[in-house]
Parts: sequence; C-alpha cells; structure tokens
Amino acid sequence: MSLLTVGTVAFDDIHTPFGSARNAIGGAATYISLAASYFCKDIRLVSVIGDDFPKAELEHLSQRGVDLAGLQVCQGRKSFFWAGRYHSNMNSRDTLDTQLNVLADFDPVLPGHFRQTPFVMLGNLTPAVQMRVLDQMEQRPQLVALDTMNFWMNTAMDGLQQVLRRIDILTVNDEEARQLSGEYSLVKAAQRIHQMGPRILIIKKGEHGALLFEADRVFFAPALPLAEVVDPTGAGDTFAGGFMGYLAQTGDTSFDNLKRAVIYGSAMASFCVEKFSIERLRHLTHADIRERVAQFVRLVHFDARLD
Amino acid sequence: MSLLTVGTVAFDDIHTPFGSARNAIGGAATYISLAASYFCKDIRLVSVIGDDFPKAELEHLSQRGVDLAGLQVCQGRKSFFWAGRYHSNMNSRDTLDTQLNVLADFDPVLPGHFRQTPFVMLGNLTPAVQMRVLDQMEQRPQLVALDTMNFWMNTAMDGLQQVLRRIDILTVNDEEARQLSGEYSLVKAAQRIHQMGPRILIIKKGEHGALLFEADRVFFAPALPLAEVVDPTGAGDTFAGGFMGYLAQTGDTSFDNLKRAVIYGSAMASFCVEKFSIERLRHLTHADIRERVAQFVRLVHFDARLD
Repeated sequence: MSLLTVGTVAFDDIHTPFGSARNAIGGAATYISLAASYFCKDIRLVSVIGDDFPKAELEHLSQRGVDLAGLQVCQGRKSFFWAGRYHSNMNSRDTLDTQLNVLADFDPVLPGHFRQTPFVMLGNLTPAVQMRVLDQMEQRPQLVALDTMNFWMNTAMDGLQQVLRRIDILTVNDEEARQLSGEYSLVKAAQRIHQMGPRILIIKKGEHGALLFEADRVFFAPALPLAEVVDPTGAGDTFAGGFMGYLAQTGDTSFDNLKRAVIYGSAMASFCVEKFSIERLRHLTHADIRERVAQFVRLVHFDARLD
Repeated sequence: MSLLTVGTVAFDDIHTPFGSARNAIGGAATYISLAASYFCKDIRLVSVIGDDFPKAELEHLSQRGVDLAGLQVCQGRKSFFWAGRYHSNMNSRDTLDTQLNVLADFDPVLPGHFRQTPFVMLGNLTPAVQMRVLDQMEQRPQLVALDTMNFWMNTAMDGLQQVLRRIDILTVNDEEARQLSGEYSLVKAAQRIHQMGPRILIIKKGEHGALLFEADRVFFAPALPLAEVVDPTGAGDTFAGGFMGYLAQTGDTSFDNLKRAVIYGSAMASFCVEKFSIERLRHLTHADIRERVAQFVRLVHFDARLD
C-alpha cells in the first residue's frame, strides 16, 4: 500500500567530535521517504524547497519510488537550513542555527491522487501544518503516525493536542513523553498519552532503543551496539520511515507486525548513523537489511526454558 | 553447585523524591545472596558486621540457605553505613554519608569448606580485599565474577588491574566501562576490557537494561518498564545475585545460558526496585519469578519472518 509523508527537505551543517559536514542533504521527509523506499514502492512526499536544492537529489528520490508531485519549489528562495553540534556522547546536541527560509510560510497542498493514501507519516513540523495535511485527506487513512518535539509542546500545545486527537501513532523521545504527559514513569506516560488520542506510542531513546506501547502491551527494541557512530542526524526520521514503510508494505497493523516494524525501523536507523547525512541510505540492499535484522534477533532472543 | 560471595552487609539511609528509609538493611553481599538464594541452595557469604546488626536478619539469611561461617562479627563496633539521595530521575544519586566502621580494617578469612567453591561473586569492595578472597581459594574456581565502581578506578587502579587478570566476568555500569577502557563506544570498551582479563563483560545501564559481551558475541536485556520505582538501591547487586545464582544452579556457562542468567538477574532486579531495601526479596515465589521472566519474553521477542 502507499505511504504519504510530510516533512522538511533541507540542508544541514553537522558538527560531531569526530568530523563535520556542510550543506549536507537532510530533512525529516528526506530520511523518512528514503528509509521507507526499501519497503514500499509508492511513497508520496509533501514538502517545500527553494531553487537551491540539487536536482540530482530529487532524481535520486524519484528513482527510489518517491512521488514528488507534492513538493513545492519556490523560485528565488532558499531551502530550510539547520546547523547543530553533537556533544561527546553523540546522544545530545545543540542547535547552532535554524533558517526557516521557505518553511516560514509553507502551506502543504496535496495533489488529488495523494488524498486517499492509506498510510500517513506526519514528520516533525508545526502542528498546524500537520493538521492541514489531515484536513485534505478525502477519507480517514488506515494509519496516521505523527512525530513532534518539545519545541511544539512549548509553543503550540493547543494545536498539538488537536492534531493528537486525529492520529493513531505518536513518536517522541523519552523526555518529550515525560513533558507531554507530566509523568516520569514511561509506563504512566504512555497511559496518559493514549488518553490524548494516539492508541499507539513509540518512545525513541536513541542509543537506548525504543519502546512501543499499545493499550496494555509493551515491546522493547534495543539500538544495535555499534563500534562507530558517525552522525546521529536523521536517525529518528529514518526509524519512522522504516517503521511506516514496513507497515505500508505489509498492510498489517496487528501488534505482532508493529513489533516487526519497530525492528525494521531500528535496523534502518542503525545504518543511518554509520555515515554523515543520507549517505548510508543511498545504496542498501535487501540482503543488508535482512542481515541487520538477523543481528537484532541474535541481540535480544533467548530461550527462557519456562516449559 | 555452590556460590561464594564477598561484599558488604550494612545499613542504608535512602532518600528518594517519593519517600525515605532509615537504617534499612543493605549491603552488596546481602542483596547478592538473597537474590541468588532463589536459585542456589548452597551460598557462602564472606563479610563483616558490628554487633548492631539484627540477629533476625541473619536468621533470615540462614533460613534461605546462606552459610554465614565467613561472616565476622566485631563486638563493640558498628556495621558499615551508607546514606544517599536519589535524583528525580531515580537513575542517579548523591552519596550523603559513608561510615566505613568495621569495613575499614576488614580482612576476609575463608572457612576451610569455602575454599573450593566453584562459583564466586566478588561484590564491590576495595580490589585488595577482592584479591585476598581469590588468594585463599584452593583451586581456580570455575567462574569468578567481580563488581567494581569508578571510585576504585580513581584510587586503586593498580590493584583493580591485578584482580581483573584473575576473573572471568566483570560487571560495571556504562560510565565505568568508558572510564576503565578509555573508549566511548561500548563495543570498543568491551574489546579493551576483554584484553584486561575478563572474557565476559556485563554493562549495567540501570533503567536502560544490560549488555552482555563475550568475545564477538553480544546480548542485550532491557530493564522491565515499571509504573513505580520505589528504591533502586541494591538493584545492581540483586542483578548480580540472580545472574550468578542461576549459573551456579545450572552449572552451565555456555553463552546461551549466560543470556538466560542475564534475564533472571534482570527479573530479580525488577523486583528489588519495587520496595525499599530488601523487602521485595524476602518472600518471592518461583511462580513470581517465572511470571516475571515471561514478561521479559513478551517484552523483547518478535518473529522476524526472515525465512
């Protein structure tokens, strides 16, 4: 089945203790759609760029099955730009610069053939823009996931709460889950967030893995322990793209399949951090992904001998 | 098979954002031997106390199969005392007070029938005392595990490095693994620590679970997501006790069984934090433990459908 995603398509300046990348290709929708493209062959991207974004990168997305009919190109303007510096633990970062550019007045417009997409991934953007996308859907999608961040909790909580009532899956990190719910325990936080709308919650903990909550069920996927983490930028979006791409491919939203989707998302994220920007997501093979998933099986499976 | 443990038997004052306990029963060897007692019926404890330690608590240990022949009781002196305050995240704490008392001049003496114990758990103590225990063994034990902390890395690194060469398993937390190895990546840290002696490394990450490394194999066990964490004190020692107790009971040190032992240790630690002090470890049943292990299976197992 098809997957619609909205989010940034952008440039990043990235500084880590081990190296830097300038004007690197970035943006939530870029990572989401690239990761999803390894599972789902009908991806619809809604975003905005200036005329500075490389045509070769757009062609690369098209070749990977990403429909760019919903990508607005603003002549004479610049694409969204973000610069950040990672701390020595690579698990936290400071924003050095944010230039909204074309994002400042982004009004997403869905082409007609996008308006019945069954799977929707709303990348991190102002809640009003996420809502505008949902408002244009001609029928309630089968599954809507939304990513957000503490910034919108601080500045647009009303809008965020409105859009939360219309989605199925929320993805946030552990601190954001605590802020949104007012609960320190992630188990209690999940209960509160379910009451706000999303019946499924994914808490992303970076190097500490991810938790999936649905009703009273919980599943945990670790992050793969890696010898080298080069650049964590986009790991959360890559996770979301792999997760939603796998669900769209299989069309199965049972808890057992949500668990598999979390593992596929974690596998894609483990590739993402191995190189700067989207480099590692350009040329993966299905054999690469299978082998990575097999590593997750070996990492966590045990025979409890309870029988 | 039998398990020998050395460590503190002590009093703790514990302050958390949710409550306090004063003069609570504590100490690494207390937690280790209680947790191990649910698996192994022949536990040998080496420690030191003052005459202030409650006789009823010693009887409780005896009733659970803990041989106290190696417990020195110093008349007219006080037992080791620690006081600490947990931060609001319950994952870090400040030490408020440490009174060594009888621990200041502790010289462990192993009764004759302790000196051929096949499984040995050296609880967190000065490395010289841990070494003194190994020196009294009449033959190389089948498996020696050692717990230590950053304090000994800062003040007794030479002694620590000497004892590391004589053990099989090291248990430390993630920051300690980084400090000991000088590597930020836990994968690289494990490689460096293997070279120092321990062929098996367990990195305890508190609420983020535990990693097991042996040669090029790695296994991850999450911590159980709990709605309420009352008191994390002793969770690491309880983990070690469950882990080593399970290994001593089964006598099997294969990687598959080490994985199971990590899960049993994690299950015991998940009980420990549910009440202050050792309260939750007094009256568990085998059915309780089986059900908790089954929760771990549900938490992490998935069908990857790779075939």
